Formats: sequence, C-alpha cells, structure tokens
Amino acid sequence: MNHNLISAARGDIPLDLAIENIKLVNVFTGEIYPAAIGIYQDKIAHVTKPGVTTLQAKQVIDGQGKYAIPGLIDTHVHIESSMLTPSAYAEVVLPHGTTTVVTDPHEITNVLGEEGLAYMIEASKDLDLRILTYLPSCVPSAPRLETSGADFTPELVEKLIQWDGIDGLAEVMNYYDVIHQDPRMAGIVQAALDAGKIAQGHAPTLSGRDLSAYLVAGIDSDHECRTGEEALEKLQAGMIVEIRESSFSYNVAPIAKVIKDKGYLPNVCLCSDDVKANDLLQQGHMNHVVRRAIEEGIDPINAIRYGTLNAANRLRRTDIGAISPGRIADIVLLDDIKTMVVSDVFTSGKLIVEKGNLIRKQNVVNPPKHFMNTVKLPEIKEEDLSITVEDPHATIAKVNAIEYDYAPGIPTNFHEVTLPVINGEVNLGEYDGKKAPLNYIAVFHRHGHNNNVAKGVLAGFGIIEGAVATTVAHDSHNLAVLGVNKTDMKLAANHLRESNGGMVAVKNGEIVAELKLPIAGLMTTEGAEEFSPRINAFLDRIEASMMPGKNPIHRLIIATLPVIPKAKITDMGLVDVDNQKFVPLVIETN
Amino acid sequence: MNHNLISAARGDIPLDLAIENIKLVNVFTGEIYPAAIGIYQDKIAHVTKPGVTTLQAKQVIDGQGKYAIPGLIDTHVHIESSMLTPSAYAEVVLPHGTTTVVTDPHEITNVLGEEGLAYMIEASKDLDLRILTYLPSCVPSAPRLETSGADFTPELVEKLIQWDGIDGLAEVMNYYDVIHQDPRMAGIVQAALDAGKIAQGHAPTLSGRDLSAYLVAGIDSDHECRTGEEALEKLQAGMIVEIRESSFSYNVAPIAKVIKDKGYLPNVCLCSDDVKANDLLQQGHMNHVVRRAIEEGIDPINAIRYGTLNAANRLRRTDIGAISPGRIADIVLLDDIKTMVVSDVFTSGKLIVEKGNLIRKQNVVNPPKHFMNTVKLPEIKEEDLSITVEDPHATIAKVNAIEYDYAPGIPTNFHEVTLPVINGEVNLGEYDGKKAPLNYIAVFHRHGHNNNVAKGVLAGFGIIEGAVATTVAHDSHNLAVLGVNKTDMKLAANHLRESNGGMVAVKNGEIVAELKLPIAGLMTTEGAEEFSPRINAFLDRIEASMMPGKNPIHRLIIATLPVIPKAKITDMGLVDVDNQKFVPLVIETN
Repeated sequence: MNHNLISAARGDIPLDLAIENIKLVNVFTGEIYPAAIGIYQDKIAHVTKPGVTTLQAKQVIDGQGKYAIPGLIDTHVHIESSMLTPSAYAEVVLPHGTTTVVTDPHEITNVLGEEGLAYMIEASKDLDLRILTYLPSCVPSAPRLETSGADFTPELVEKLIQWDGIDGLAEVMNYYDVIHQDPRMAGIVQAALDAGKIAQGHAPTLSGRDLSAYLVAGIDSDHECRTGEEALEKLQAGMIVEIRESSFSYNVAPIAKVIKDKGYLPNVCLCSDDVKANDLLQQGHMNHVVRRAIEEGIDPINAIRYGTLNAANRLRRTDIGAISPGRIADIVLLDDIKTMVVSDVFTSGKLIVEKGNLIRKQNVVNPPKHFMNTVKLPEIKEEDLSITVEDPHATIAKVNAIEYDYAPGIPTNFHEVTLPVINGEVNLGEYDGKKAPLNYIAVFHRHGHNNNVAKGVLAGFGIIEGAVATTVAHDSHNLAVLGVNKTDMKLAANHLRESNGGMVAVKNGEIVAELKLPIAGLMTTEGAEEFSPRINAFLDRIEASMMPGKNPIHRLIIATLPVIPKAKITDMGLVDVDNQKFVPLVIETN
Repeated sequence: MNHNLISAARGDIPLDLAIENIKLVNVFTGEIYPAAIGIYQDKIAHVTKPGVTTLQAKQVIDGQGKYAIPGLIDTHVHIESSMLTPSAYAEVVLPHGTTTVVTDPHEITNVLGEEGLAYMIEASKDLDLRILTYLPSCVPSAPRLETSGADFTPELVEKLIQWDGIDGLAEVMNYYDVIHQDPRMAGIVQAALDAGKIAQGHAPTLSGRDLSAYLVAGIDSDHECRTGEEALEKLQAGMIVEIRESSFSYNVAPIAKVIKDKGYLPNVCLCSDDVKANDLLQQGHMNHVVRRAIEEGIDPINAIRYGTLNAANRLRRTDIGAISPGRIADIVLLDDIKTMVVSDVFTSGKLIVEKGNLIRKQNVVNPPKHFMNTVKLPEIKEEDLSITVEDPHATIAKVNAIEYDYAPGIPTNFHEVTLPVINGEVNLGEYDGKKAPLNYIAVFHRHGHNNNVAKGVLAGFGIIEGAVATTVAHDSHNLAVLGVNKTDMKLAANHLRESNGGMVAVKNGEIVAELKLPIAGLMTTEGAEEFSPRINAFLDRIEASMMPGKNPIHRLIIATLPVIPKAKITDMGLVDVDNQKFVPLVIETN
C-alpha cells in the first residue's frame, strides 16, 4: 500500500503533476467529458471534473482542451520486424502514443537462441516504453519440418518461462501439433500454464472442433483472422481476437465490418504484429490501428477501448489501460480522436513526448559483436539452385508448384504443373499455363548447424526480373532467394552471405538495391529517422526495377512460414501446412 | 493440460453429454442463436451451430428450444443473512440458476470468530453450488466503536488469508479507516494484497477524493450504491460496481436508469448481499436480480452478461461465466430470458435441476453443539433499559436521537430533541416534535466478552406497540431491543437470552411472534421449504400487531451498523459514522 499515494489522492499532500483542462475519454463508461488528472509519482491519484476540487500540484500542465486517453497497448508484436533494436523502436512508437507492447522475439531467437532472447530483454529495460516480453513458444515454428538457429524444447521452455523478464508464452503457432497433442508442443504449453502464464495464440483458418481443441488446450487468443467470419467464430467461441493491422496484413477492414454493429465487445483487442520502421515513422503504430478501426466504422470510443482497457484486461493487468486512480499514469493527449494524431505522451507520470516530439533519449544497449556474424553457410553455386531429376532419360516432370493468391484468407496452396526436363534439369521458362510465369525459389539453412537447402517453384508470384534474396524469412530466417535465373539468384544469395545479412535485389548481374540488416541478419544499428529513407529507397528501387507495383521481398516471405496454410517451403523441403508433412517437389517424371 | 478433453473437443472420443436444440445466449458477442453444447466430464468441450458437426455423446438431452445461459454468479452475499446453513442455501438457490456465489461470512464470524469461519468453509465444500469464501475484513466492522464476538487483527488476517478455502478479502466496510490510513485497516488490506487476493469494497456515499483514496488503497469494488449518480461516479473512477437487489435494498432501479443507455459496460456486476430464505424461495436469487435489471430497462443480454461473464472477469477467473470450450459446464436453461424463470441447471457438467426441481440432495455438515449457545449475557432488568441523567435536579435533557429516513441514500442521521426528565430518567412518551413518536433502543453485548450496554432514542422509526428484539443486528450481532415500554423490551430481550437467539415481538407482556435462529443466533437448522412459512408468519404477525405495513425488525437493524452513514448505535454507544466517533446520548441537562 502506497501511503503517500493515498494522502495525495485525498489532497492531504500535494500532487506531483496536474493535467488540467482535458477532455477525458472514459474507457469504463464510454463517455467523454471535461476533466483534470492528478498524478503522484508514477500513478494516477485522482481524476476530477472541473470545479469540484482543486488539484494542488507541484507542476501544472494546461491540457488545452485536448482529448486524454490511456496509453495505447500493442497486444502482439515482433520488434525485430520493425528492423530496429528495442531502443530505436521505442523512440519511434512513443510519439505515436504507444506506452506498452507485448513482444514475441521469436525472430532473433530463431537466429541466436537464448542469448538473442536475453539481449532483447536486456535492451528492453530502462526504456520509457513498457516492453513485456513473452517467451517464444515455437522455435522453430514447425520442428519436424524446418531447422533454424535454435531449438526450444519443453525442458528449455520450463527453465526460461521462470526468467524475470518473461511475462507469458508467445504465439503458439504450431496449432497442428497442439490439436494433435504432439508431446513437444503439449509440454511447452503446459510449462507456461504451470507457471501461471498466459499462452498467446496463432490459429489462421482454425475453425469448428479444431478451434475448440486449441482453446481447451489453454491457448486463449488469435491475431491471424483474415476474414470477418473467422473473427466472429472465434469471438463466439470465447477467444480473444487481437485485430491486426501490420505492414503486410490489413485485417481491420474485414473484421470491422462484422463487429461494428455489435456494440462494445469485451474480447476484442488490437495488435500490430509486424510493422516496418518506415511505416512506424510515416503512418504510426497503435494509433494507426485505432484510426483504421474508426475509419472502418467502429465507434471511436470502442476503438480506443480495444487499444487500451481491453488489452490490459487481456494481459490480466489492473495497473494500466485506463486513467483511473491507482493505475500507472500512462496518458496520451490528442487534438482529435478520429485522426488519432498524438500531441503529448506521459509514461509513469512523466512527460516524454511534447507536441509530437520525444523529449527523452532512450537508453541503448549494444548487442554482442558476434550478433553481426550470423550468416553462416558455404558459398552458393549455380548447381545448388538447379532443380534436377533422377531419371536421366526424363523429358517431362510433374512438379508441385506453390501457387500464390490461392483464395481469400489462404495465401498459398499447391498446384501441379507439367514442365519440360532438359539435360536432367527442370525448365521453368516455357511454362504458359495457369498463373504463369513461374519462378525459382530456394531456401538455404544459414545458421551453421547443417547444410540444408530446399528448392521450389512458385506460380502466380508475378513477373519479376532478376532475383531477390533475404535473411529475413519468417520465422526460421534462413536465407531465401527467388528469381528467374540462377546467375542473379547466386549473386544475390552470396552477397548476403558476405555482408552479414539483409535484403538484396540483383538484375543482370548487378546489385540494384540492398538493405543492410547486420544484427542477426534482421535488424539495423540505426534509428528510424536514418533507416526509414533506406527502406523507402530500397522498396522504390525494387518495385521500380524488379516488380512494378509489388514488393517482391514481402511476397517472397509469404512462402517460408510453415504454420500458415497451405503450401510453404522451408530449408528441409515443401510443406503441406494443413497436414504438417512434406510433399515432393518433383512428383514424377516421364 | 487435459488430453482427453482435447480429444473430446476434436471429436476423437465421445463426449459425455450433448445438450441439443438450445438457443445460446452468447455473452461474448451479445448474440442469441441456435446451438448445441458438447460436454466432457465437467467442462465444455465444444459449442456448435446446428448441422455443422455431430456431437457424439454418451448421453443426449433435448434442450427443447430453451435459452442457454451460463450459470449465474453472485459477486457478494452473506449466506447467514438468508438464515440458512450453506447446504440449505444451496438447495434454494440452485433451482434459480445460481451456480457460483462469493460469500462473506462476517455475520457468523462476528459471533464465533475463526471457528465460525471454519465451519462455513467446511459446510460449503461438497455442494453443487460453488461457494467462494472471502475472508471477513472487518471483525468487528468499526473496532474502536463496538465489540463483537471476535477480533480480526492484521496478524490474524495474514494467517487466515492463506487458508485453502479463502479466495479473497471480503467487503472492506471501514472505509473511514482505510482513507485515514488507520494502521489496523491498512495492515488487513495489505495482507490481502500481498497474498495476491482481491480486496472487495463497501463504500456508501464515498465520493470525490475520498473515493480515489479508497481505490488507490487497493480496494476495487462497491455494492452500496443507492443512487444512480453514485454508481456512475464510481464506474467513471474505474471501480467495479456490484449492483445490489436484496431483501432490504433495491438498488437496481436507480442505477439502471443511469446506465441502461450506455451499452454494455465492462465493470458492472450484480449481487444479492442479504436475502432472506422466504424471498429466495418465493422470488428467486440472481435470476431475480437479472429480471429486475431487465424490468428497469437494461438490455436483457447485457443484464445476463452482468450476472455471468462480468462476474467471472471481476473474480479474475477464466473458467466460469461463459459457455465456451475449456470453461466449466455450468449451464442454465430458461424458457424465457425476460422472466428469467429457470427450467434446468447443470453444474460441472451434471444435471442437478430438472424442470425447476433440484434432483441432487446437498451434503449437510452439522455445526458443533456450542454454536447453539451463543447468547451469553446476564438477565436484563428494567433499570438496564432506563435512560438516566447524572444531575438529580435536571428537569429537561437535550438528547441525540437517531432520526430515520433522513435523506435519499442516507438512512439515518442525528437529530437533537429536548425531553422532560422525571426522577432522573428521560421520558419519551410526551414528545410531539419532528418525527414523533420516539422509541427506546438498547444494544447489549451478547458474546460474553464484556458487559457493554448502550441506550438510544429513535425518531421517525414509526408507531410501534410493545417491543421487538433480535440477535441478528448487523454486523456485531449483539442483542438489540426496541420498543415503547421497558417491560415489553425486557421480556423480549430475556426471551432471546433463554432461547439461544432469533427475533421476537412482545406486546402487553405476551410474545406475539418469534423466529428461532439457534445457530449462532443467526441461522436455522431447517431448510428453506420448512423455514419460509415461519418467516412469513413472523413477518405477518409483527406487521399486523406491532407496526402495520412495516417490518420493525428490519427497520431496527438499520440502526446498528456503524459503517453506513450517518448515525448509529452499537454496544458501546452512539456513533457519528462520517467521523467515526462517539456522540453522547444526553448532550446536556437543565
């Protein structure tokens, strides 16, 4: 019990700060009314309507009639997907009114294991942004079907879930193994439940009895709803739906359509999942997700509730998510709640963003040197990229291609194509069937634990010239390369090998664009202000010279994650996601 | 992780029970639609819309198109106020669809201390009703201003809060001591917070900065809102408001007026607090509170949410409060949600109420013999009831009377009256001033720890003939007696002394009505069916012969609780509740 706080609440001792003259958005009652907020140390001590009581305080700030909302909360994000380190990430999201995030560092953990996780926790302390780290549950995402840089067994999870800096179990992506009661996945989830921790979910297209099986296993949320129907079914089942608007998935619109007329819903939250640094800087963060929800017809106060109180409730925290006596003074002032443009931000009772500008430098923790040396594989040769067949006399081959844009909510599926075989090598160039042209894809294990390489064929990817390669390939972050010719592909892949990771585009033997991501092959050492122009330039160049109107790296990464249906490629081969098994690239030859 | 439950959810093994053909009231989305419920052991395994999947189950029940809602939850009740033991209480509330209650046994604890508490916990196990026992926090309610049969110090609370059968800290009634940071109250609340337990509240008329002080002390709810404005202020402050409809307080109507147009509210719950056995039998329990809410304009589905999901959230439980896979199968079937008349009830997956009838006998635990011998005080003499003055020559006295019906939301206040003194004794009979006639009241300590007796004068109580006495006098449950003449008062008080407690009415030297409550002077050994007619007969008789149209015992008890403003009487004297201090009965004489 904080005795001084009780005294300050009563008015027996002065407050530290009074924010006068604001319009309080009350997340409990859904009302907006004039008010003033009294703060003592890091807590809200009292909230008053004007003229009822005087807030005697050491410092008084005039809120100038702005709206006051609680600090925004991201219920699920991968900080590494911003390509920024935690400190730089905090610097770019705080001015947008985000005061708490729940992060799943499975990206860096898949590269660097325990020490990657430990670094992220260390680098997340001592920031004005409250970063709650959840323990990655799926390292790698599908253990039998891919290899990454680490292997989080149930025994390891039992140990790590007790770490001071761990607040929950992060998205349980291998829903297949959960509902089929695979011992490894069951052990991991049980370790979290035994520790009294939340187990976050990831369950794209899961429905009906499979959805119930996932829920009764103890996993309570999902952020992978791509359609309104999917979201409604999950809400009806009692699941917490974290509506996502990321750099890659725009789920607010379809879900809003279905929920906007149902009033305030208790189990709806918001999240960003994966948002690139340039989008954070230019568009916003959780304020952007709230804005999108309002644009799509959700009542503005409910949208704010979804980004604040509902998130706190979902996190089982009664100390954040609302402007209420006893809660932490995380407060955001806005000129207008429809546009959600943030003016000022207070965290733990301190003004840290003033008129949109961060006024407190965020603490930096530098990663260990060897984090810059995580692309470990032999030099790639052209024959590594060839799709060969066994039968020397074969002239045609039936091949499993990965078809893009299969159906709404289902990004990929397998599609049989018949291709000519020339000199024992499958040829893509002449195909003019459904979803032509075809492209080559290859995934190389790059963490130094084995020499895995898998090859594939993409249909419907689009017309691309040259090749693109990336060490950001969710979630195993092996080295993925895609293109129309093996020469450019080889060049692109080897360039990343030599430059310690990132993204690169090669055309006619020349590098036309690159984005350096030296930390774990995932992140930059720079801040958002410096790095965003690089992202923008990279994207402009690759869209202009490689694939007009589309982002080939983004499109490439869609193919590498074997826990989103239906057809994927890992360093071990082609994966049928629904059945969690391999399928052959070459089905048969003649 | 329950492996069989996961299998049953998926349909890999048969369910135990399927309830087909119901109309599901979905508390998450606010919708009603046809559905079927699959249960495995004590849990919900799956909920399906018709025709989507077949629920293979060992037993199938046809829901006959009835509405299915989650089992109702009472967030705050004193089982002893029903005058029934836990088993008998369960028998009467289960048929009304209540499946969980949060009980505060401070009534019996104020009489019998730790062993009274232990008995209630023991008697509450092994019932089909889930009884969550919260540790009484205020024994006695105002330690400096009254004595009861026990004394719960912070040290004792620290020990008892760890008991297996204790789930939280019960209503912290001494809000005055909380906000003035009295060490005893602070220590008690801190013990609960340190143990990670909820601290329930009781804060009638608390407002503004005092309300904030109470909240920041860590107490998160209140069930004492008598007006809509009071409820709205508390909701705005972030408090959980438990709307009460009891045998004595009808708070639903004024609160509903204020909240019904604000949509679904997250912090609204329902409770019954004190409901007599006859009201439970004849009117209902939580189904009645929900019905009242609907009658007063609250959307029926929201009213049901307030009595189910919101209560579970308030209790920080994710295993009750909704019909959702993984949650406990507490289900209520109703023909109509507006009238809330219950047809069938399932608890933990078992049918226990069929067409309104309880089909499972509830386990009985008999209290120790000495619980029947708790009225321990010397024989009362008429001089014990006289209001005397010190000055032998005085002819008039200015006296603090307790005025009834002071203002809306404020049941009593002090009111000075000037009375004649005859032979050293204050005389009430000739008073014809404001709120005449006056009545005598006396409170005798009856737990055997001291010889306290305090006398008082009531104004505006009403016209009563004879005297009434009770050993149910909230919360210290000392022996309170009220009347117009000392002869009848003495008879009434001594009768209770001889018969081990209860309520009695005496007129012209004859007992005209009595209600035996031999267990702790609070409860009957009988069940509701046997005992309700006795209550009805008692009330009919006393209303007919003592005080037409009013219940004098109920009215008497209003005067004895020193933690509801503003003027009360305890065994130690007259209490100014707002300032938590004594005021003299006789102010001055002349």
